[in-house]
Amino acid sequence: MSRFLSVIPVMEAIAAAEKIAPKKKTGNVPVEQSAGRVLASDIVADADIPGFDRSIVDGYAVLAADTIGAGDAVPAILHCTGRVAMGSPDSGHMVTHGKCVYTPTGGVLPQGADAVVMVENTEEAGDTILVRRPVSPGENMLLRDDDFRQGETVLSAGRLLTPQDAGVLAACGCVSVPVSQKPVVGIISTGNELVPVSSRPGPGQVRDANASMLAAYLQQYGCIPRIYGIVRDEQESFEAAIARALPECDVLLLSGGSSKDDRDMTAAVIAGTGEVLVHGIAIAPGKPTIIGRIGKKPVFGLPGHPAAAFVVLIAIVCPLLDRILGLHKPMFRTTAAVLGESIPSQKGREEYIRVRLENGIAFPVFGKSGLLHTLIRSDGLVRIPSVCEGLEKGVSVEVILW
Amino acid sequence: MSRFLSVIPVMEAIAAAEKIAPKKKTGNVPVEQSAGRVLASDIVADADIPGFDRSIVDGYAVLAADTIGAGDAVPAILHCTGRVAMGSPDSGHMVTHGKCVYTPTGGVLPQGADAVVMVENTEEAGDTILVRRPVSPGENMLLRDDDFRQGETVLSAGRLLTPQDAGVLAACGCVSVPVSQKPVVGIISTGNELVPVSSRPGPGQVRDANASMLAAYLQQYGCIPRIYGIVRDEQESFEAAIARALPECDVLLLSGGSSKDDRDMTAAVIAGTGEVLVHGIAIAPGKPTIIGRIGKKPVFGLPGHPAAAFVVLIAIVCPLLDRILGLHKPMFRTTAAVLGESIPSQKGREEYIRVRLENGIAFPVFGKSGLLHTLIRSDGLVRIPSVCEGLEKGVSVEVILW
Repeated sequence: MSRFLSVIPVMEAIAAAEKIAPKKKTGNVPVEQSAGRVLASDIVADADIPGFDRSIVDGYAVLAADTIGAGDAVPAILHCTGRVAMGSPDSGHMVTHGKCVYTPTGGVLPQGADAVVMVENTEEAGDTILVRRPVSPGENMLLRDDDFRQGETVLSAGRLLTPQDAGVLAACGCVSVPVSQKPVVGIISTGNELVPVSSRPGPGQVRDANASMLAAYLQQYGCIPRIYGIVRDEQESFEAAIARALPECDVLLLSGGSSKDDRDMTAAVIAGTGEVLVHGIAIAPGKPTIIGRIGKKPVFGLPGHPAAAFVVLIAIVCPLLDRILGLHKPMFRTTAAVLGESIPSQKGREEYIRVRLENGIAFPVFGKSGLLHTLIRSDGLVRIPSVCEGLEKGVSVEVILW
Repeated sequence: MSRFLSVIPVMEAIAAAEKIAPKKKTGNVPVEQSAGRVLASDIVADADIPGFDRSIVDGYAVLAADTIGAGDAVPAILHCTGRVAMGSPDSGHMVTHGKCVYTPTGGVLPQGADAVVMVENTEEAGDTILVRRPVSPGENMLLRDDDFRQGETVLSAGRLLTPQDAGVLAACGCVSVPVSQKPVVGIISTGNELVPVSSRPGPGQVRDANASMLAAYLQQYGCIPRIYGIVRDEQESFEAAIARALPECDVLLLSGGSSKDDRDMTAAVIAGTGEVLVHGIAIAPGKPTIIGRIGKKPVFGLPGHPAAAFVVLIAIVCPLLDRILGLHKPMFRTTAAVLGESIPSQKGREEYIRVRLENGIAFPVFGKSGLLHTLIRSDGLVRIPSVCEGLEKGVSVEVILW
């Protein structure tokens, strides 16, 4: 193992990971549980929606021409010939010149009518209706295909579904929605300094915070995380843990201890049963990242510093997860902001700076990547491309939110 | 029942709902599943974190003073007296003038040392180490309480936990995290025009899209939604459905049909077994909203138009859910943006405009509130306060993201 890493650019590292992405698997979920899942097939409207011309107010269906010039002083006077019942087909009501039909919100627009006058703008005197405001043709109504037209693709495969999408899917009759299966991501922690969260660390020891943090993020990212605990830095037990975890997972993360010896062992173990594709990425924090493959499964060796592990998860592992999920754009949210302070950066490596957002202004939160508290006092990351020597105060940036 | 609603301001409606919020219930979840939950108690660091002075690089622990003036031409020459083992207590290594100790990343800083030189800036010749760059005291190391100090409150009750918080909780030894229980929110749909998602709508009928949409949103908002299906607009079956659902829920939503008759019946049914507190809110869309109480449970009558139901869920129901969850600030994300187009508004009512975001600019997505497609083609809502007559293009706005 060489003493120094031979780093490769972030884009190449992502491409190396994507090349070994396992194939997307699909399944079905009930429509009301589909938000946060990735749509696996295009969804087509099975009929026009709403399916019939429809009033969108409680009022009187009229011929718009009958209301021209209507006002408080000189109302239009119409004869009401009936009421539309909710949920019933057009029951033979007909609106002709001088006539109107009471139509509740959502009711079928009677034949002949081309607009609806809100009840608030009318006065009832038995069957005589005084209309005090004119309406234009099409006013206060929907056409049968105003929302979606039969055969139209309403939502496309690869979309991260929202609650509103669930509404649209329900409107299209999708009781059960085709979605990508959640990838199972295993996490094995290594490092002789690590003790379980339940232990009280002795001198020189720290609790394994990274596994919980990574698992929590993966769960929110639409994956099924599986924590396999801590293995000691001994090649044999490490290999045994991987052999146990790998068949149960789609992707395996080896959450490294922080020392070089530990990283070297991780690389050696991957090389022993698989192949190391990348060892060292031009990213900060996160340089000592390993990407490999064992069998057909991607295996990552993540750095031990919490902030570094988190950045590598977002910048390198998530693009692979997106690929497995069939996602068209990353699942994490981004927001536009203005940089509140200049940030120096070293050319030749991609830097990810933690930032705090305040009214659309992003302030860098500096701090050593071994510290957790910079992660909880920031709102997201700003990426500085490797060709930049830094970003000037006042420039527009995209913030990856967490 | 009066023909017109007597509306009250949004703030009053929210206050009326919050007044009847059921008490927060708490429980525990494993730390790796705590992201997205609301912390129920303050969490205090049980020890200093990291707990010992620590190297954050692979390198040599030194006295910084020994490296003053070190460079490529004239390196500082130190004698290496040993290596720190990962995870071991300080094993008696001592750094004195002219000496150094190899210390891996995360290793315990040997006594006497006050900085670490990165291995990249050194050269080894047996036990003789050439240091080619000076370090300042404190460089490349963490102090024992740099992250958190024993007894310090690291996270406060009422916080919506993030994955990074899970890392901090794990570092503090919280295997199991005290969180608010997820409120159970029942959804009963009413309206004679509604048919189940699994049905093919006949003339005049539409599928019940709102229940799926509301349930999907509530699930993402940290609640347990429970869909009770559609009841016909008949007082008896409506009352029976409520009587069945109410004992199982903390909050009940009556997802209304769109007609005034249906809303009136909803109000009558709530009044029959409980109390109507609000009937009509100065909000657009969403005016015909009902807030009531049956027994000690909050019951909402939501409008039938999808966009209106969604806005009322976010603007009126969510503040109640925040109260039940003990959340300090709303769970939904917001982002700052600049308005890309002027929006007119009617003074005296709060308007919620759907907007599409593009590089930090929010463009209004106009469309009738009976349509679903405006919801899926927008990214969030901009609120126009009731005292405004609209918002001018170019003003800064806060967008409630969905």
